[in-house]
Amino acid sequence: MRSYLEAVQFHGHSCPGLAMGYRMTKAALDHFSHGRAEDEELVAIVENDACGTDAVQVLSGCTFGKGNLIFKDHGKMVYTFYNRNSGKAIRISRPAEFKETLNHIDLSREEMIDWILSVSEVEIVKLVEIKIPEPEFARILKTVICEYCGETVTETRVHELNGKISCIPCFKKQNKQIIKQGEQQK
Amino acid sequence: MRSYLEAVQFHGHSCPGLAMGYRMTKAALDHFSHGRAEDEELVAIVENDACGTDAVQVLSGCTFGKGNLIFKDHGKMVYTFYNRNSGKAIRISRPAEFKETLNHIDLSREEMIDWILSVSEVEIVKLVEIKIPEPEFARILKTVICEYCGETVTETRVHELNGKISCIPCFKKQNKQIIKQGEQQK
Repeated sequence: MRSYLEAVQFHGHSCPGLAMGYRMTKAALDHFSHGRAEDEELVAIVENDACGTDAVQVLSGCTFGKGNLIFKDHGKMVYTFYNRNSGKAIRISRPAEFKETLNHIDLSREEMIDWILSVSEVEIVKLVEIKIPEPEFARILKTVICEYCGETVTETRVHELNGKISCIPCFKKQNKQIIKQGEQQK
Repeated sequence: MRSYLEAVQFHGHSCPGLAMGYRMTKAALDHFSHGRAEDEELVAIVENDACGTDAVQVLSGCTFGKGNLIFKDHGKMVYTFYNRNSGKAIRISRPAEFKETLNHIDLSREEMIDWILSVSEVEIVKLVEIKIPEPEFARILKTVICEYCGETVTETRVHELNGKISCIPCFKKQNKQIIKQGEQQK
């Protein structure tokens, strides 16, 4: 298991959110008895993009660039992990009492980090087995050339513009020019 | 500067895309004479979420969980780096001849990785200084309690439902139930 220090080295600094993400991800990996994902053996569905998700990336190997970190912008510190080997999924959140506990302890930022890293798991992690459909594998797509800028672009991210293949930025640029020309002709 | 090996350890495996991301990010940091971002000193705007972006995260410190990795889903291997200290921005892509070069070399996957890591920068990296407005800083938002599930949620990600605060998943679940009830009453 990668250490909290390794998560800090990746994130750039230590903070309570990162420490919380570390405890939540550690709980998930312990539950699955699973090591870090070299490829897509594990999938993480994260419901925010806050500090803790960097701990998810470091510990679980579910990373932004590997297609096994799925972002749902719900503003919630909730991570769902899917294990492709077993077909099992778990939802990791904080216990209902957690916010209440925070209101009753008066700690500095550093003390808070230490507390999160050392408190018993049951006090800060709620783990529930759930059933979800297996997430799709990341696809390797063909690239084509944008006929406006000449740069390569994934085939599923192109528009057709005046009979030519266009990437999204060129499409937007051309459309802006067309609107501008239209306004000048008025 | 973090090594390619460190990028591999984070990504989980070595591949041509990661090696390319490594060269492109290294070129950016060298150009800025900038170390890894501990906080938000650097911002990366990435135009795909493929392997190379894991090298962006490891080398530049612009990470998914820190708010300084901005994803524009254009399907293009193009990274724009903004340096908050100098206000300068650079756009990193591959030279126009790059795809042509690839067509003329016949290499195994491992040889391709070695080639990408060792070829001179001018052959695989195109770096252009550009002007862009300073990206916004990540905001730390208040959290509120969803009155349906009792979980905490960022205040900007809530709905109001029957006069109560609802997180997005609960809002969707309630709406599904309402639609289902309506269909049963027909």
